[in-house]
Amino acid sequence: MPHTLVLLRHGNSVWNQKNLFTGWVDVRLSELGETEANRAGELLVEHGVLPDVQHTSVLTRAIQTANIALDVADRAWIDVRRSWRLNERHYGALQGLDKAETLEKYGPEQFQLWRRSFDVPPPELADGAEWSQFGDPRYADLADGELPRTECLKDVIARMLPYWRSDIIPDLEAGKVVLVTAHGNSLRALVKHLDGISDADIAELNIPTGIPLVYRLGDDFMPLEPGKYLDPEAAAAGAAAVAAQGRK
Amino acid sequence: MPHTLVLLRHGNSVWNQKNLFTGWVDVRLSELGETEANRAGELLVEHGVLPDVQHTSVLTRAIQTANIALDVADRAWIDVRRSWRLNERHYGALQGLDKAETLEKYGPEQFQLWRRSFDVPPPELADGAEWSQFGDPRYADLADGELPRTECLKDVIARMLPYWRSDIIPDLEAGKVVLVTAHGNSLRALVKHLDGISDADIAELNIPTGIPLVYRLGDDFMPLEPGKYLDPEAAAAGAAAVAAQGRK
Repeated sequence: MPHTLVLLRHGNSVWNQKNLFTGWVDVRLSELGETEANRAGELLVEHGVLPDVQHTSVLTRAIQTANIALDVADRAWIDVRRSWRLNERHYGALQGLDKAETLEKYGPEQFQLWRRSFDVPPPELADGAEWSQFGDPRYADLADGELPRTECLKDVIARMLPYWRSDIIPDLEAGKVVLVTAHGNSLRALVKHLDGISDADIAELNIPTGIPLVYRLGDDFMPLEPGKYLDPEAAAAGAAAVAAQGRK
Repeated sequence: MPHTLVLLRHGNSVWNQKNLFTGWVDVRLSELGETEANRAGELLVEHGVLPDVQHTSVLTRAIQTANIALDVADRAWIDVRRSWRLNERHYGALQGLDKAETLEKYGPEQFQLWRRSFDVPPPELADGAEWSQFGDPRYADLADGELPRTECLKDVIARMLPYWRSDIIPDLEAGKVVLVTAHGNSLRALVKHLDGISDADIAELNIPTGIPLVYRLGDDFMPLEPGKYLDPEAAAAGAAAVAAQGRK
């Protein structure tokens, strides 16, 4: 029997609307984001994809998205697992900055390097800075050195894949339909692994918000066929919108 | 260090409003219930009682209550555990019946026996009946004979206390502030244990909806002092309202 994995990127947040770099800053969904999460739940029902267990990051916008979508799908009662390892990429000193202003100030080359470089992280965020997560109780259990001050996608892969192996695969192995509700970059990291995308090509991959992406996996927990968005047209439009981010 | 346990009974549901026996039927919160859950979250913040882990039943009205209250308290990110062992008492063949009509039809003595008897359950609900939970996927993992067809409070204690010992106490032992969001009768069962209330006296205990009840527990996980409602006046009024249920 193939295993079923459902990936869901959280909907629009209040900082997406303000066009700010968010990263680990714990902002809430916008009204549009709540509508997207509702639609995600409807898509799960329409396609009969009913999760048995959910994994989320520890960021409120992903948790809100999962709560709303599962409530709509009448699956609020399934088991829940959360991990910081599913968090968005830490955007370092860019957290809290306006994307359009940053693009203007540093130019398109540097801007795109920070957004999409595989292994060049933005400058570190100082521990006492306004948008630092040092001291946030949700990270109190992390080992020394685990809480990032900035991350590139390579760093996200390095902290996300261990969780894929230790916590998500066992649920798939137990025959459960697994929903992972997370973020643009933690999901890009997972899709890069699943689809075997190269370090160079991953820059071009954009995951749209609020549209469940369903994989059928074999016994090696790798895809038997390409992942399918439950609303392909909306997914294509959404991916194009993500690619255009930062432009005024 | 004393351990901190917070009990929260879900807010008003759409079937509370219709004055129907609910039990294991999975009805949603009413708007009033959502407001109560919000208030519960505010009380947690006002009193600085911030849960590190949450336990809920697998019934949507308890999950909604916990989600709303924790979201208000900025603790949506804490770990989540769910169990059918925290469910409301199964009301047997009374599930779905109007409380006032039942009172009228069977008289106050029989009515009060079904509502508050320690060891006399209502008649069993047939497996194929409209409000039966047989076949509900959330109970698919239960062992043969675990899914009830009716319950008295004694039955609730028998299936709830094992979970208290196996799952809640370990979280308290780990130093976590534990929030248990559940139901009138599963919480009465727990309070009976904690406060050493006799089988006869438990009939008089009514737990109000939406008001966190905080216990400080010693190393034996029994109370060091009486539990305290975070809004004692509202709790007294709420308990009186519960006691009056069924009257027209």
